[in-house]
Amino acid sequence: MTDKYAPRPGETVLDAEVAPDAHVQFIGVIRTPFKTRDDCPRQGRFDGPECRIEVEARFVPALQGLEPGKRLEILYWLHQSRRDLLTQSPKSDGKTRGTFALRSPVRPNPIGTSLVELVAVDGAVLTVRGLDCLDGTPLLDIKPDRCGYSVQAPDK
Amino acid sequence: MTDKYAPRPGETVLDAEVAPDAHVQFIGVIRTPFKTRDDCPRQGRFDGPECRIEVEARFVPALQGLEPGKRLEILYWLHQSRRDLLTQSPKSDGKTRGTFALRSPVRPNPIGTSLVELVAVDGAVLTVRGLDCLDGTPLLDIKPDRCGYSVQAPDK
Repeated sequence: MTDKYAPRPGETVLDAEVAPDAHVQFIGVIRTPFKTRDDCPRQGRFDGPECRIEVEARFVPALQGLEPGKRLEILYWLHQSRRDLLTQSPKSDGKTRGTFALRSPVRPNPIGTSLVELVAVDGAVLTVRGLDCLDGTPLLDIKPDRCGYSVQAPDK
Repeated sequence: MTDKYAPRPGETVLDAEVAPDAHVQFIGVIRTPFKTRDDCPRQGRFDGPECRIEVEARFVPALQGLEPGKRLEILYWLHQSRRDLLTQSPKSDGKTRGTFALRSPVRPNPIGTSLVELVAVDGAVLTVRGLDCLDGTPLLDIKPDRCGYSVQAPDK
């Protein structure tokens, strides 16, 4: 699925097929108030709106041990993004940069990552704050935040 | 590719095929000093060894704008991990928890994320510190660290 956005001035398009090197499976769906790409904030915030992560029933046992109040890293598939831009000129400043110097959803592998705060767990549904993705985005993974895990504290 | 590690006591195995909902392409390879899973540290550190990220030639234009000293988020495919464990009993403490409450490489979608510090860029090769993955791990994505991007400062 390629998005509706045509390349902007300065953007470079890769003329090559996507190699199917490995498969991802969608393990749930993310529900947010953001119905179009223009609705999505530039980045999620812990004081943003509550969103729902609906995990498929067969993966519910894998939620064991998740506790409200903890921070999680969420990975998801940016299903409306084209994958072939090597350089991009973001609408915010129009300045052309390499895709790997941007957190744009348009990437060779359109995988988004967000840090969220877990508000509640109810069966297969997590309520979280901190997401910035479209309503209906397929879920790929849930991990504990590495910061809560590590001897390596964030910069002060 | 499934790893050689058999389930430990308490671990739950999902009896289902991986649905091929989307595919990822490998955009390069990661070179680390860690030749076996037992060599890998539990988590990368900014004072860890220098590692090399070798980006495929066609993606070099996408590196434009990356600067040494900056922090990057690296996504990679944990190619030796089995994908079917719902609960796991890590060797470190043997305590059984859900896969989504662990940062284990064994996950329904075996995608690893690390924060690294960029030491140098030379053509298609990035030198970084902070990785914890196996030598030969396939590269999926490079993003600027969200912390350097955001109004949302880390906790103090």
